[in-house]
Amino acid sequence: MSEAADAPTSQNPDLHQPTRDELVEALRVRFGGDGAPAFDAVNPTILRQLQHRSVRRFSDRDVTDDQLRAILTAAQAASTSSNQHSWSVIVVRDQARKEQLKPLIGNQPFIDKAPVLLFWIADLHRSAALAERAERPFAGGALLEATLVAFVDAALAAQNATVAAESLGMGITYIGGARNHPEETAAALALPPHTAVAFGMTLGWPSPTDRAKIRPRPLPEIVVHHEQYDADVLPGLDAYAERINAFFAEYGREFDWQTYITEHFADDADFFGRERLREALRDLGLPSD
Amino acid sequence: MSEAADAPTSQNPDLHQPTRDELVEALRVRFGGDGAPAFDAVNPTILRQLQHRSVRRFSDRDVTDDQLRAILTAAQAASTSSNQHSWSVIVVRDQARKEQLKPLIGNQPFIDKAPVLLFWIADLHRSAALAERAERPFAGGALLEATLVAFVDAALAAQNATVAAESLGMGITYIGGARNHPEETAAALALPPHTAVAFGMTLGWPSPTDRAKIRPRPLPEIVVHHEQYDADVLPGLDAYAERINAFFAEYGREFDWQTYITEHFADDADFFGRERLREALRDLGLPSD
Repeated sequence: MSEAADAPTSQNPDLHQPTRDELVEALRVRFGGDGAPAFDAVNPTILRQLQHRSVRRFSDRDVTDDQLRAILTAAQAASTSSNQHSWSVIVVRDQARKEQLKPLIGNQPFIDKAPVLLFWIADLHRSAALAERAERPFAGGALLEATLVAFVDAALAAQNATVAAESLGMGITYIGGARNHPEETAAALALPPHTAVAFGMTLGWPSPTDRAKIRPRPLPEIVVHHEQYDADVLPGLDAYAERINAFFAEYGREFDWQTYITEHFADDADFFGRERLREALRDLGLPSD
Repeated sequence: MSEAADAPTSQNPDLHQPTRDELVEALRVRFGGDGAPAFDAVNPTILRQLQHRSVRRFSDRDVTDDQLRAILTAAQAASTSSNQHSWSVIVVRDQARKEQLKPLIGNQPFIDKAPVLLFWIADLHRSAALAERAERPFAGGALLEATLVAFVDAALAAQNATVAAESLGMGITYIGGARNHPEETAAALALPPHTAVAFGMTLGWPSPTDRAKIRPRPLPEIVVHHEQYDADVLPGLDAYAERINAFFAEYGREFDWQTYITEHFADDADFFGRERLREALRDLGLPSD
């Protein structure tokens, strides 16, 4: 049997080698014309990462169990802090459950339209279960360090899932709104103590009518520092604001990024319930001491 | 000019199409023979994710500026919460600085041997700078939600960098020890207020003498849940303990994973300074209220 016949490759759009034009265009849309990074070290994986966009409009095409297994196995292969595996993921496909969860997690109109809704869980339940069986205390589980490790473990896994999904041609959107009502969301997902939803994610095949574009990013000069942090960021933030405001203007949306940021952080009003996340996590058995 | 001549592909090992044997072997080493996931939806990106291992022994080959730009631009293309871009990265190449930082971040012997040491920063400095210029309060920056978003943003970017680096043939290791001495590490990196090191990372080309193997993972049945969380995890944890203990025994290391987990969480003693992370982050202007 030839290698080609032996290869499980039928769903693989991964082998297109980027041209220089594609690379230059991807960098231009991310960073504009002035000061965009340039490099030669590109391949299909990296080009696809550069072209990432959040997909909020899905086609009717289903995500098969086979594809989902591939994506979530890639997630499991991500690094995990000190062999702790402090994360889980919950796959929601049931339409009634999606509709039940939607108002709890930000109520964005695309949430129940996605074939798959994923909940990435900061998860100390398994470690707590081992401690309980061994009749040992679980004092370390109350530390902010433990909670942060669980959120970071969940994020590493989720980003691996993102890369895997996009390598197959699918699209995703992260849903921070999944932290808006932590206790109610935990109850709907039957979460045990010592776990909480870190964030949600919609997954599916992009609709041909999806017009979401790749979003601009700040220039590397204010994000990537060399040897030490260079705190002189305001000129770079002004340049970014121009590009991101122009980006939204193209959709006909008036947007002032700097006002959006300053008003977001000015008080609790723009946190949609997440201003009480510390208290909610404590109630769920994930204190941040 | 042909597409091939036009393509920036010289450093690209990305085009090898996985065979079924490679896929089956990757899943076997991760999950053992019983209960390992099986799927057809594989491609070069996904196979490489499955084959991820932490690399702690590097060859003399340098990481070029061009390659590093590619890796960190891929990092910048990751999703970021609500257009906030609450992360940065610091590239440390200077040997004296690596040696200065090493005892602060866990003192593992490979840290100063890596050609590149990266510090992934949970970063609210840019948002705080905008607030200060606009003479607006920064009350939201004191919330646990804001700190968690910054850590998650840093993690998504770092995992994209990991995937990009591995797609070029390099290897990485995450360094949670970079949280052991937050204030001293921040001072060494000249971090401004409202920032902290989320974690470190070594980056380089694997040494031909590196013998690190792909590490086992728990079976999906206790990590991947369907519709709701299934809290019955102890049988799966027993099965995982057998495999991970056998894995370390192959290196001649006696390891009892369950005791390691229960003793880690039993008290503060095994947190290497990170038991005071909440206080340290508050000192650095990242409270968790």
